[in-house]
Amino acid sequence: MEPLYLQEIIARALAEDIGHGDITTDNLVDAQDISEGTFTAKAEGIIAGITVARAVFHYLDPDTEFTVLIEDGQPVAAGDTIARVKGKTRVLLTGERSALNFMQRMSGIATRTNKMVEMIRYQKARIVDTRKTAPGLRRLEKYAVMMGGARNHRFGLYDGAMIKDNHIKAAGGILKAITTLRAQIPHTIKIEVEVENLQQLQEALEAKVDIIMLDNMDTGTMKKAVEIVNGQALLEASGGINEQTIVEVAKTGVDFISIGALTHSVTSLDISFNLL
Amino acid sequence: MEPLYLQEIIARALAEDIGHGDITTDNLVDAQDISEGTFTAKAEGIIAGITVARAVFHYLDPDTEFTVLIEDGQPVAAGDTIARVKGKTRVLLTGERSALNFMQRMSGIATRTNKMVEMIRYQKARIVDTRKTAPGLRRLEKYAVMMGGARNHRFGLYDGAMIKDNHIKAAGGILKAITTLRAQIPHTIKIEVEVENLQQLQEALEAKVDIIMLDNMDTGTMKKAVEIVNGQALLEASGGINEQTIVEVAKTGVDFISIGALTHSVTSLDISFNLL
Amino acid sequence: MEPLYLQEIIARALAEDIGHGDITTDNLVDAQDISEGTFTAKAEGIIAGITVARAVFHYLDPDTEFTVLIEDGQPVAAGDTIARVKGKTRVLLTGERSALNFMQRMSGIATRTNKMVEMIRYQKARIVDTRKTAPGLRRLEKYAVMMGGARNHRFGLYDGAMIKDNHIKAAGGILKAITTLRAQIPHTIKIEVEVENLQQLQEALEAKVDIIMLDNMDTGTMKKAVEIVNGQALLEASGGINEQTIVEVAKTGVDFISIGALTHSVTSLDISFNLL
Amino acid sequence: MEPLYLQEIIARALAEDIGHGDITTDNLVDAQDISEGTFTAKAEGIIAGITVARAVFHYLDPDTEFTVLIEDGQPVAAGDTIARVKGKTRVLLTGERSALNFMQRMSGIATRTNKMVEMIRYQKARIVDTRKTAPGLRRLEKYAVMMGGARNHRFGLYDGAMIKDNHIKAAGGILKAITTLRAQIPHTIKIEVEVENLQQLQEALEAKVDIIMLDNMDTGTMKKAVEIVNGQALLEASGGINEQTIVEVAKTGVDFISIGALTHSVTSLDISFNLL
Amino acid sequence: MEPLYLQEIIARALAEDIGHGDITTDNLVDAQDISEGTFTAKAEGIIAGITVARAVFHYLDPDTEFTVLIEDGQPVAAGDTIARVKGKTRVLLTGERSALNFMQRMSGIATRTNKMVEMIRYQKARIVDTRKTAPGLRRLEKYAVMMGGARNHRFGLYDGAMIKDNHIKAAGGILKAITTLRAQIPHTIKIEVEVENLQQLQEALEAKVDIIMLDNMDTGTMKKAVEIVNGQALLEASGGINEQTIVEVAKTGVDFISIGALTHSVTSLDISFNLL
Amino acid sequence: MEPLYLQEIIARALAEDIGHGDITTDNLVDAQDISEGTFTAKAEGIIAGITVARAVFHYLDPDTEFTVLIEDGQPVAAGDTIARVKGKTRVLLTGERSALNFMQRMSGIATRTNKMVEMIRYQKARIVDTRKTAPGLRRLEKYAVMMGGARNHRFGLYDGAMIKDNHIKAAGGILKAITTLRAQIPHTIKIEVEVENLQQLQEALEAKVDIIMLDNMDTGTMKKAVEIVNGQALLEASGGINEQTIVEVAKTGVDFISIGALTHSVTSLDISFNLL
Repeated sequence: MEPLYLQEIIARALAEDIGHGDITTDNLVDAQDISEGTFTAKAEGIIAGITVARAVFHYLDPDTEFTVLIEDGQPVAAGDTIARVKGKTRVLLTGERSALNFMQRMSGIATRTNKMVEMIRYQKARIVDTRKTAPGLRRLEKYAVMMGGARNHRFGLYDGAMIKDNHIKAAGGILKAITTLRAQIPHTIKIEVEVENLQQLQEALEAKVDIIMLDNMDTGTMKKAVEIVNGQALLEASGGINEQTIVEVAKTGVDFISIGALTHSVTSLDISFNLL
Repeated sequence: MEPLYLQEIIARALAEDIGHGDITTDNLVDAQDISEGTFTAKAEGIIAGITVARAVFHYLDPDTEFTVLIEDGQPVAAGDTIARVKGKTRVLLTGERSALNFMQRMSGIATRTNKMVEMIRYQKARIVDTRKTAPGLRRLEKYAVMMGGARNHRFGLYDGAMIKDNHIKAAGGILKAITTLRAQIPHTIKIEVEVENLQQLQEALEAKVDIIMLDNMDTGTMKKAVEIVNGQALLEASGGINEQTIVEVAKTGVDFISIGALTHSVTSLDISFNLL
Repeated sequence: MEPLYLQEIIARALAEDIGHGDITTDNLVDAQDISEGTFTAKAEGIIAGITVARAVFHYLDPDTEFTVLIEDGQPVAAGDTIARVKGKTRVLLTGERSALNFMQRMSGIATRTNKMVEMIRYQKARIVDTRKTAPGLRRLEKYAVMMGGARNHRFGLYDGAMIKDNHIKAAGGILKAITTLRAQIPHTIKIEVEVENLQQLQEALEAKVDIIMLDNMDTGTMKKAVEIVNGQALLEASGGINEQTIVEVAKTGVDFISIGALTHSVTSLDISFNLL
Repeated sequence: MEPLYLQEIIARALAEDIGHGDITTDNLVDAQDISEGTFTAKAEGIIAGITVARAVFHYLDPDTEFTVLIEDGQPVAAGDTIARVKGKTRVLLTGERSALNFMQRMSGIATRTNKMVEMIRYQKARIVDTRKTAPGLRRLEKYAVMMGGARNHRFGLYDGAMIKDNHIKAAGGILKAITTLRAQIPHTIKIEVEVENLQQLQEALEAKVDIIMLDNMDTGTMKKAVEIVNGQALLEASGGINEQTIVEVAKTGVDFISIGALTHSVTSLDISFNLL
Repeated sequence: MEPLYLQEIIARALAEDIGHGDITTDNLVDAQDISEGTFTAKAEGIIAGITVARAVFHYLDPDTEFTVLIEDGQPVAAGDTIARVKGKTRVLLTGERSALNFMQRMSGIATRTNKMVEMIRYQKARIVDTRKTAPGLRRLEKYAVMMGGARNHRFGLYDGAMIKDNHIKAAGGILKAITTLRAQIPHTIKIEVEVENLQQLQEALEAKVDIIMLDNMDTGTMKKAVEIVNGQALLEASGGINEQTIVEVAKTGVDFISIGALTHSVTSLDISFNLL
Repeated sequence: MEPLYLQEIIARALAEDIGHGDITTDNLVDAQDISEGTFTAKAEGIIAGITVARAVFHYLDPDTEFTVLIEDGQPVAAGDTIARVKGKTRVLLTGERSALNFMQRMSGIATRTNKMVEMIRYQKARIVDTRKTAPGLRRLEKYAVMMGGARNHRFGLYDGAMIKDNHIKAAGGILKAITTLRAQIPHTIKIEVEVENLQQLQEALEAKVDIIMLDNMDTGTMKKAVEIVNGQALLEASGGINEQTIVEVAKTGVDFISIGALTHSVTSLDISFNLL
């Protein structure tokens, strides 16, 4: 995680929570009082965001000692100590909730992602995320997806070209859309087109597109798509794929499976923070 | 929703998504082209965030026409049209994902909240949220909780005093902690103390605390707490309460039930945006 | 004082004063030159803001040595040395005025506050501040009020509910207003109502409001209010109270006296900074 | 007042006051409800900041109607209506305090300034302000000084060169300091030197400095300074000058009298806001 | 040009220039005075930035009328009127310099770019820009390059993968570097590798890289590279290419020629602004 | 260079370049890997911006060792090592381009400035810069001008009064304009008037203006102006002066020659960064 970006996102989270002051802690705990605490997993999963939690405490006081016991991307069982923190009691009590809010959400993402990655571990297909992330937290969530063992799709509208139905209409056809984009966008960016049937797939292929997204296709059609394309473009399956359907989709032979639920429907990993 | 705050959070979300430009749309769609689109529910639930979605499009172009058909807080069935948007095609295509990211998450919160509110509709207890929100989005999420029919707990560390275990230790006892706070914090703020057993409850009561949080108590003990307190303080049940346990907890007679999962474990409501 | 907030407010103050550079100092004083200076009181009073002054110099150069001799909240006599500063001469000369601007204003607030606190030292009533603060400096000014020995009222419109005349009209009566708020705002926040006569007081009392503000009442009526309320709500006197009237108001038996002049009409404490 | 700067300073003031929401008004007043209110002077003085007050309401809602009856810089008597405001009741109630905080402080500055300006109306000397302003509000306060009929000294360390004692030491003498600055700073900026006695004055004069500040001199010495200088440089009197001493100082024949108290010790002008 | 981004960059430019106020204009020109002015080319070239100039005036006053006569990307001859502006005289005089600073620099870029584009008009090769832009102005400068008829390379380190010498060393070889990146970065981004000789080119080709940059090669070697690659990857020539060498480079048959000087060494196009 | 300002401008430059991450470096280079690199001049010139380059690396990692071998303002020959940098390889590779973008542009300005300064070394006239700078970079560019041996004109519209043609018209004549300004702006600021002929010059002189700008005059007229003014005001020559004309202009005896091209038409100094 890039430190510059973290500072800003943490400042925002703490400002939101602390406001004009932690009126309980500031009035009850001595400014010089020192404590030690631990983050403990209360369920099994994959950890992500421990570096963000550390940065939260360091933001409040750079002298806080933060010892990571389980690194981002590592599995954790209920009862495992994830990290130890030693520093001003005020800092520990004031920062605790924000640190947990980051880490629990990110670990929840990593955990679900990893579960799905494991389900298709022996298939060629790689799971990728989407732009369906909590506003303002995209980089953190995409990092958590990586920690769960999957890969990132484009980060925004700027680092990937994705031609959808409406773009095709506006441009006057798939070929026209691809040709126009190819002449306008940086040559470092690939072009992806979303197709709904095999005819569109054929058109996209003829326009020598880089990536074809198979949108909400049944797995039978997907298989045919894989045969037709035969390596001439990357194939990405998309559309409501979940734990029930992912194995079947992966078996069609597509290269990528994009799953919005990895980030739009997150169950936090249960983690607690306790002073010793 | 306060317009000033919305501007900032939307600017951030759009900057994150658009970066240096929507390279697909800007190169394929004419700047003057006009379209119309609709937001459609694909599952039943409670809508929240339609005002945020509108603000997203207005941020990109104040002349966008946005017609709300289903207001925040209203129920929606699969297939219902939630809103119509008419404006520059570029604005619609560029803003679509950000608008959905806000609205789907917020509606997901409102939907789950409402389901739990309905489960205890005939009990005295009121559901309240917690500080377990996605960093940077707390106000939106607490608004969604309200739209789901529940109430807000304190917004941060600054507008409510919550004495926890570690504060009690630091202060030297419950009575000491409450007395100290009472003399220091604004007289407009109530004091809440978290208790783990009936002895602590008794102490808190004698210190004339305003609110007592029953932390992870079984419902039998909760009932005794209700009897002991007998209206001398507000009682709040807390600790992993969910759809399975909420009715039993409500029946103990507590005043409030706080539920972190309302915001920390959200399933997005399925909503789609389509150009006509 | 919370360090994060200080950074921002100091950055703003310095940017305003330094602009594109301290053209006198930067061109006359060598970048490596070191000096020592002292802050000296030139009148008696209560010090507040010494931590802010320190932060000003640390912002310009973290290596500046700043030795506090008289802490915030302590009394000072004319001629007393308040703090010593040692560091780059440039930093001392460039930061001097901003440090003084903060400290003189805050000490002025603490000094006047303390004088009034002393006047009613043996009464029950506690002095509280208001929202009549210099825009952008509220937290600093409320901190100075604390250093003067008085207490803080709510920090803003968000952490206290204050029902005024117009709210009562809009809601359709005192009872209606209180009941509505009780059901909508977080249960951690108390409700205060502003009353202008004893009839309104009675209504407020029946609605079981938490705090009643007696707005511009004569002390005779205040006394009656104290008798009527008899501990069922907190009573706050308000309205142009000053050094001439505070003792009489305090003797009525009210719990709080709020005084806008503490922050809206401040005479700076005379403090000078001199290089040795 | 420059609109761009106003936006920022108002946003900050409102954020400080409103926080996550005006919990009283938002819950009691209907969003569409319209009211009208007036700003009324409760003491005589000079108005400054009416444009800032207007900008506060326009910031909250651009459609608010704001009719100025007494312009900035105009005198006002107790009971005079200064402005009328018509718009959303919520906007009026939420913005009222912030608008008053700006306007009362600025009008307080203009009022005291004007009183002193009047005292030396028939003298050559012009009153100027200093850098002793409330941090973050300097432009507003200097504007208020102008509205009071006095003039502005430099705005910061960047738009005027002021050689003080320590600069002289660092540079190695008055002549050396002036010569060095003359060769380094933009030729559009004048150089001012602070002198404590007539010998320093003589040196400054020989170095052909533009402005000489007579620091804490008695009026007898000031008179001699005026004679010696005889129009070869501008003369500025400084140091604790107030209503008691200003006339005598003005009579010495100096060109400018700088007065820190205009901005560092402000008594707010009493102004009220009432809904009709 | 995206309006949101423009606002921010213009605000910064104006703040830098206006500071606490345009002391000449504000004191000499009446606030209500209206004028009309024109932007006139004083040399021939290609216009870029007219939309930015317009946004500068609209930022200062949205009611300013700005009539574009020569659009971005269009050629201009000395004496041509580029745009007319009508609005407050203050706005015209205060904004003039900032508007020109943007437009002259951007038009200078477009003009030089276009000259080089014309030189190789009948070759396959396309000119692309680099990251050698003025800090904080990259988007504007890349837009100007587009207006000059050339294309954009990646916008930053985030939207293109460029493997240089040091990356190869760190990764342990070209193949390793490409394979690692392929497995880690979004599949929407192409991979470019910088090679210094034909052996490295061969390696890159075998690793199936998308784009190969020929770094500082003589045109003889470039020609061989074109033959070897034979369409299996895109070829980009780079390294100090200018007006003297571009034709020869283009004739080698490379696909792209990247030229840092387009943005790092800009001669402003001479444009004046005159009130009528 | 003031550190506070640098932080902000560097943060912006890096954000623009790094975006959501340096996807090449972050995926190929180990986070702990350490390297050393050098900045080398590839052409002769004057260095400016080495402190900015250092600040870029320190911003990314405060522990980076940066050894300056050639200070700002010093001459450099092709092949000279300007600075050595040792630190995390990631930091070196990610920061390299931004550091160079600052330093090359600033050194280009210093180099051209110095060349012109040398051309009139034995004349009285001093070269000054203008407001024709790259938006957002003015302070850096004016600093580079100083490093090249010339002087700074006003930094913006706020720290110098410059009466141009349109101001004269608005004010009703040169005398009126100067008198009005003299009574309104701080007495620390000089007044400059732009004249186009000797009659205007005479008027300005009679109004006792501080500085007279001779706008686009031929050198014959300039000489007459020098004779007429005879030291009663500072004289500044302006208008398209370049390497071809500067000596002749200087010989007329004017005090200052302002040259926009120093900053509006910059050729970057060729500097490279190489890992050892």
